[in-house]
Amino acid sequence: VEVQSQEEMRAEPEATLNADALLAVWPALSHTEQSEAFQRLPRNEAEDLFLALGAADQAVILHEISPADKRSWVRLLAPDDAADLVQELSPEERSWVLALLDDTSRREVTALLAYAEDEAGGLMSSRFIRLRPDMGVDEAITYLRQQAKGQVETIYYAYVLDSEQKLLGVASLRQIFTAAPDRRVRDIMETDLKVIPEDMDQEEVSRIFSQNDLTAMPVVDAEGRMKGIVTVDDIVTVVQEEATEDFQKMGGTEALDAPYFQISFLEMIKKRAGWLTVLFVGEMFTATAMGFFSKEIERAVVLALFIPLIISSGGNSGSQATTLIIRAMALGEVRIKDWWRVLARECASGLALGAILGSIGLLRIIFWPSRHTLYGDHYALIAAAVATSLVGVVLWGTLAGSMLPFLLRRLGFDPASASAPFVATIVDVTGLVIYFSVASLILGGTVL
Amino acid sequence: VEVQSQEEMRAEPEATLNADALLAVWPALSHTEQSEAFQRLPRNEAEDLFLALGAADQAVILHEISPADKRSWVRLLAPDDAADLVQELSPEERSWVLALLDDTSRREVTALLAYAEDEAGGLMSSRFIRLRPDMGVDEAITYLRQQAKGQVETIYYAYVLDSEQKLLGVASLRQIFTAAPDRRVRDIMETDLKVIPEDMDQEEVSRIFSQNDLTAMPVVDAEGRMKGIVTVDDIVTVVQEEATEDFQKMGGTEALDAPYFQISFLEMIKKRAGWLTVLFVGEMFTATAMGFFSKEIERAVVLALFIPLIISSGGNSGSQATTLIIRAMALGEVRIKDWWRVLARECASGLALGAILGSIGLLRIIFWPSRHTLYGDHYALIAAAVATSLVGVVLWGTLAGSMLPFLLRRLGFDPASASAPFVATIVDVTGLVIYFSVASLILGGTVL
Repeated sequence: VEVQSQEEMRAEPEATLNADALLAVWPALSHTEQSEAFQRLPRNEAEDLFLALGAADQAVILHEISPADKRSWVRLLAPDDAADLVQELSPEERSWVLALLDDTSRREVTALLAYAEDEAGGLMSSRFIRLRPDMGVDEAITYLRQQAKGQVETIYYAYVLDSEQKLLGVASLRQIFTAAPDRRVRDIMETDLKVIPEDMDQEEVSRIFSQNDLTAMPVVDAEGRMKGIVTVDDIVTVVQEEATEDFQKMGGTEALDAPYFQISFLEMIKKRAGWLTVLFVGEMFTATAMGFFSKEIERAVVLALFIPLIISSGGNSGSQATTLIIRAMALGEVRIKDWWRVLARECASGLALGAILGSIGLLRIIFWPSRHTLYGDHYALIAAAVATSLVGVVLWGTLAGSMLPFLLRRLGFDPASASAPFVATIVDVTGLVIYFSVASLILGGTVL
Repeated sequence: VEVQSQEEMRAEPEATLNADALLAVWPALSHTEQSEAFQRLPRNEAEDLFLALGAADQAVILHEISPADKRSWVRLLAPDDAADLVQELSPEERSWVLALLDDTSRREVTALLAYAEDEAGGLMSSRFIRLRPDMGVDEAITYLRQQAKGQVETIYYAYVLDSEQKLLGVASLRQIFTAAPDRRVRDIMETDLKVIPEDMDQEEVSRIFSQNDLTAMPVVDAEGRMKGIVTVDDIVTVVQEEATEDFQKMGGTEALDAPYFQISFLEMIKKRAGWLTVLFVGEMFTATAMGFFSKEIERAVVLALFIPLIISSGGNSGSQATTLIIRAMALGEVRIKDWWRVLARECASGLALGAILGSIGLLRIIFWPSRHTLYGDHYALIAAAVATSLVGVVLWGTLAGSMLPFLLRRLGFDPASASAPFVATIVDVTGLVIYFSVASLILGGTVL
């Protein structure tokens, strides 16, 4: 359906557009195409689109709107969305966008801006429904009906606060709705509360949401005062963003922070060249390591033939292990104190996988038709050296790949930085040393 | 907070447990630890935990419950959750779990089981609130209040159906709540509806949710009859699952489909050894390719020194490109018809990145203190050969890595199978051919 509407749109640029069709193809359009399409929309469709877009896209559109019209667009947004938008802007732009807001909203937005973007406080909305514990159920319903007409994020949960704004309990609209009319809010509210500290990292927040199947959760400060609510629709975005970030780091790039076609070419090269250069410089040690073994290679060129096979096997097994552990950490399945359990498990995995690849390698050399011409008379010894090295390199790759995320987290870095290429680079250098040491042991006196 | 509760739990196994604390550490426990902890919980806490867990975990627990008690546990679940649970069971278990349900629920669960697990139909709940278009607002509120007491997934949206169950519109509780009492449902309902076809893939469904910031969406069949609703809390789980699957494929493993510590050792080795063996067999072509160039290596061992550096640079740039494209495809930022735009962009990226690495490589060889001893008199020519090869290999790696996901999707495979190790393997073999061809051209007559 989406692809179809994209085709229609491109084929007939004059056809009437609507917000939904445009939203579906939005990430695939360039900035110019986006602003042209946006300006062709009727006002109400354009507003729907503007509200549905993320903050970064809203900022792009805001640039296109003439200064006189900007106010009504900025005021369309709820305070938490306005805060997100402001965070996308340059410092000069920020002040004039804030100036466009009404006083109440500006206060709320400024309060939200005090939080880091990836903290619970930065995700929350300060517009939620408040009840007093001694209200009757009918009074509460009337009060809810009033507040529902205003700008609140959700009317489906009402939060019961004392006079100091401390959170006493929560009542779902459903509980209030189905309670007997003579009861009080304090009788029906849930007091066994799950709350989010305002400085909790958004990745942790999303983990709590997905473990508990919740629609909204209250955010409190250190004194237990309620600051706002986080709703599950914001969490879907967070989960996608965090996964994308980990994904890109895993592939050996800095997180792009923008869709593929929207990031400028120079910006993308910068984000990719950084890690690629670091990996390249690390990989230069392979040339140095090989330098130490050039005597051995000269004596037995046959050894060189298996270098790519051996180091890539180490890299591949390391890449597997690091990916599994990074993802398991992100999902909370593995914690830093589990490192020894992982180590034990990966030791066994590394040996098993090494044995599998080693056996295949052994058979490949021993039964290769042209083994005598290619590998000489000592082909069986060479096969033994390659197979033994494979066990060692795969074991080492598996261990390095699985332990690196723990080490990085322990040192305060993001474990996702233990990308597949990073692990492969570490394993390449050490893999060569393992290979040539094993070869010297097994082939010393015959081939070497 | 979570880590703390885990420590407390392990340190004092006799301390009273609660569902929340146990839920937080659940994925990190072994099956035995899980069932022991579960059985120590008081019934109400145990029920909270059971309801909060995913279907796979529920299935594990169900095995531990004595046959006489199973019915009350199975009946705790809403039909969509019961259907998920049934899907985790063996065929024999399925029939007796279905037999434990009441007639209505069994019919609903059986209907849900007809959908594939990853289709919209498999995600949806068939318990939603239905309204007739000619109801008055007050009548609708009374009706809502009644239905809210029963088992419905959400009371926050009411769906307006005609006599043939065709979906006419939707009214949020908020709209009904704030409407003037003399209006009818048909006057206040939204008719500009976003609906999900029942056979839509869950990955597409989650994309629509995250683009539109919705709480619930109706699912319809090909005739427009409403079948159920999908709610955003189910989507968070889907997004996590899909990202995990892509992640693990990207790292060169089959998707594990279970948390790291819960999958059996043998099962894990099977999922890892498969791809590792395929990659290994692919990588064997490097030994074959190297065999063709063993004369060159014999004549100039210095060439062998740079083999790991050159092939790993190709692998790393390929891994970057493939990761970026796979993720952009999963998020809908890049579609299959954009392949030529990606090709153009990655051509430029590959040249730029190759030029950067090539320059570093050139300078590294030309200005290395022991260049004469290590690389001989023709070190400048060798530097030129290495630098030129780097440009070629990085360009090739970038193009192969970015185009492979398109090719795989075109052929009907999951683009995430174009894992970093897979791309690296392809690039290793061709990288060697590029390197030795360039070297023959530049060094022929001097070193070679």
